[in-house]
Amino acid sequence: MKVLLIGAGGTLGSAVRGALLARGHEVVGVGRSSGDVIADVTDPEAVARMYAQVGEVDAVAVAAGEAVFKPLDQLTAQDFAATLRGKALSQVDVVRQGVPHLTSTGSFTLISGVLTDQPIVAGAAAATANGAIEAFARAAAIELPPQRINVVSPTVFEESLPSYGSFFPGMEAVPVARAATAYVRSIEGAQTGQVYRLH
Amino acid sequence: MKVLLIGAGGTLGSAVRGALLARGHEVVGVGRSSGDVIADVTDPEAVARMYAQVGEVDAVAVAAGEAVFKPLDQLTAQDFAATLRGKALSQVDVVRQGVPHLTSTGSFTLISGVLTDQPIVAGAAAATANGAIEAFARAAAIELPPQRINVVSPTVFEESLPSYGSFFPGMEAVPVARAATAYVRSIEGAQTGQVYRLH
Repeated sequence: MKVLLIGAGGTLGSAVRGALLARGHEVVGVGRSSGDVIADVTDPEAVARMYAQVGEVDAVAVAAGEAVFKPLDQLTAQDFAATLRGKALSQVDVVRQGVPHLTSTGSFTLISGVLTDQPIVAGAAAATANGAIEAFARAAAIELPPQRINVVSPTVFEESLPSYGSFFPGMEAVPVARAATAYVRSIEGAQTGQVYRLH
Repeated sequence: MKVLLIGAGGTLGSAVRGALLARGHEVVGVGRSSGDVIADVTDPEAVARMYAQVGEVDAVAVAAGEAVFKPLDQLTAQDFAATLRGKALSQVDVVRQGVPHLTSTGSFTLISGVLTDQPIVAGAAAATANGAIEAFARAAAIELPPQRINVVSPTVFEESLPSYGSFFPGMEAVPVARAATAYVRSIEGAQTGQVYRLH
């Protein structure tokens, strides 16, 4: 399959890319500053240019999102709006605009995260965006068939503990390779409207 | 208790108001065009003016939200943004700005809806906002104590079937009085971070 992978250069994206290549898929990597295609998917016009550039694909996978992490009493209205834009509306737009560029039985795989269900201090904006994207995918799944849509909800990665571990006290980390496996499950499987939780 | 009730004039708001008055509470009703206080809570500055006007309250309850209902292939980026503003960011702002105006053990009660879990055609934007608000409340609940926050998730009301019933084929309606009871549970109870589902 030809897979459009947004956020291909990050910790998760690199693992997803590796897993897909190992299974014989073609990966078109998208990044904000490097990759086969340069696009910032928080900008709807950049999403349009991205799809125009890549042509038809068999799967679209998102492995990136931006969220503001601050204690609740420091999160501004702008922080919430930016986080919804950076992690929820961006992915909604990737789906909305992607439908005509995806093969008739192709799939979208989006990303949420453990905070939808298990909050951490300073994670309220990120949780809000995650909850949005999971509910969006469940809803979109009844209108997209035969195209499919699923969400991967990782927890913190073992590989990210040096950077982010202090935000997740006592929460079990998973190897990023497990999250990559969930993307394979979504892309090669036949389910839709699912949230694959790694927690 | 002194309860600030946003959306006091709607089908749900009227029922919540009645239930609270019957239990001896004082209700300060907020509406966009009528009520004790006039405010459009989708505007953060209007939220600030609302709180400045009402002074300290023991509970804040939201019984209103705006969402765009269209088939997924007709929902625009603007429709999603407007729905997140109208039902999710508005409620986040009511909480964010409300903290200093709420008594130390006061509560916020927000509204989501059945579409978070059980989608309907044309409901993808509304579902997205609902998912956002439920995850927000779970996350905010670990940073607000001793203040509390819960969400009421109604399904379609029996009283609204003439207007909206055709959107919810085969989904059981509930009397709006049941939803009002859930608000009482959130306001007079001691739980936090809960979603009270009427479906």
